[in-house]
Amino acid sequence: MKQERLILVTNDDGYNAKGFKAAIEIARQFGRVVAIAPEVVQSGMSQAITMYKPLFMKKQREEEGVEVYSFSGTPVDCVKMAFDYHLADRKVDLVISGINHGSNAAVNVLYSGTMGAAIEGSFYGCPSIGLSLTDHSPEADFEGAVRYGTEIVRAVLESEPELPLCLNVNVPIARPEELKGIRLCRQTRGYWREEFYRREDPHGRPYFWLTGEFVNHEPECDETDEWALANNYVAVVPIQVDMTDYKRMDYLKGIL
Amino acid sequence: MKQERLILVTNDDGYNAKGFKAAIEIARQFGRVVAIAPEVVQSGMSQAITMYKPLFMKKQREEEGVEVYSFSGTPVDCVKMAFDYHLADRKVDLVISGINHGSNAAVNVLYSGTMGAAIEGSFYGCPSIGLSLTDHSPEADFEGAVRYGTEIVRAVLESEPELPLCLNVNVPIARPEELKGIRLCRQTRGYWREEFYRREDPHGRPYFWLTGEFVNHEPECDETDEWALANNYVAVVPIQVDMTDYKRMDYLKGIL
Repeated sequence: MKQERLILVTNDDGYNAKGFKAAIEIARQFGRVVAIAPEVVQSGMSQAITMYKPLFMKKQREEEGVEVYSFSGTPVDCVKMAFDYHLADRKVDLVISGINHGSNAAVNVLYSGTMGAAIEGSFYGCPSIGLSLTDHSPEADFEGAVRYGTEIVRAVLESEPELPLCLNVNVPIARPEELKGIRLCRQTRGYWREEFYRREDPHGRPYFWLTGEFVNHEPECDETDEWALANNYVAVVPIQVDMTDYKRMDYLKGIL
Repeated sequence: MKQERLILVTNDDGYNAKGFKAAIEIARQFGRVVAIAPEVVQSGMSQAITMYKPLFMKKQREEEGVEVYSFSGTPVDCVKMAFDYHLADRKVDLVISGINHGSNAAVNVLYSGTMGAAIEGSFYGCPSIGLSLTDHSPEADFEGAVRYGTEIVRAVLESEPELPLCLNVNVPIARPEELKGIRLCRQTRGYWREEFYRREDPHGRPYFWLTGEFVNHEPECDETDEWALANNYVAVVPIQVDMTDYKRMDYLKGIL
């Protein structure tokens, strides 16, 4: 008899987030679930790790086939803890990170704690999928994301892919029946242009609060994840971690 | 008369780090310097941004041609603050991030606050250089790193490169005369294998502290930055931010 699959679930919005429960709902359909997520919201934490302080873990709940832990570190710390401290007591078949409350398309992949954790998961010998919904609301409706997330997880698990494999999946806000399907994309070129909101605290000290908007360098390009989302598709971008800019080698050979 | 250049300096070890002063020493040779760095050590902070709390800035010192600020956010927050809150009152000619106390070669580029800030700098229309020395000691000797850092900064500024340009420069621990020169490389393949150090706090609660070692998948390959460092070269890797794994598109077309 084939052993039941083991799925690791994590996120960056914390173990009580609605999207985390939605990711566990997806995972539960495919096997036993170990879920570990930050104690508090860790959005925008990227691939950050905690080097200079001790971390604490707490078992939050256990039900049929699902164990849920909170951890006082970053999303990447959660993944490292699950694998290296053997929360997962045998080979993990898949990592799911999310479902994030908010888009991780385009350059958000660099800032996202959800995708930081998904990338980390892909270092441990199993496929890894980051799932995000383009809705920041704590009460976001994850029905479409669960439906498509389930479809993508099934396709990956059944195909037994070559590793590493890491996917950045973003689902637009829409009723499931309005979604046009899955679209394979590349990361949109662009960046965040910030405006710091400046106010004074009750003691008269100025403070700054980050806000901003995404500047899309190629809004018309139908190969990109931002285009897919704007046109009601579920955007899937495969992710790799070699950041070498091979195209600049000749220039550098000329000057160094 | 040509306007004096304006160089932005940042880091992830904090505004009092010895390596930050070394980076300012490099920058000062090329123009006026605005320097902004985290209040406290932010190693391993990657591309993290602070979304859910206010940030505070403080002018720490000003001397001939150099202004130094501390900021309560991450390294990337420092860069955003410098550009978007107009600490830099005109176009910046170059961003220098570092000099980091510790290597940022190989996959460290993903976890590094130094490289997070350097990558962020490259989004703002100027070349950006992350500098690191493979020595974690607070009292590390930066002489070789300053010498080679100066050489690389000069080469970039004088060549007026096409943008974006972001470099990940790592300098091995050695006396300057022992260094064999600059070597253009690609990011080494590998990952960090962690072991959490487990102890109990004075109240009997177990805590976990991250530690680990880098596993190099290709130690013999002389194209990589780890090989260059092991052989006493200064490693230079150009960095880009499109993380799309184009090689996996065909597989995904087949299953989705």
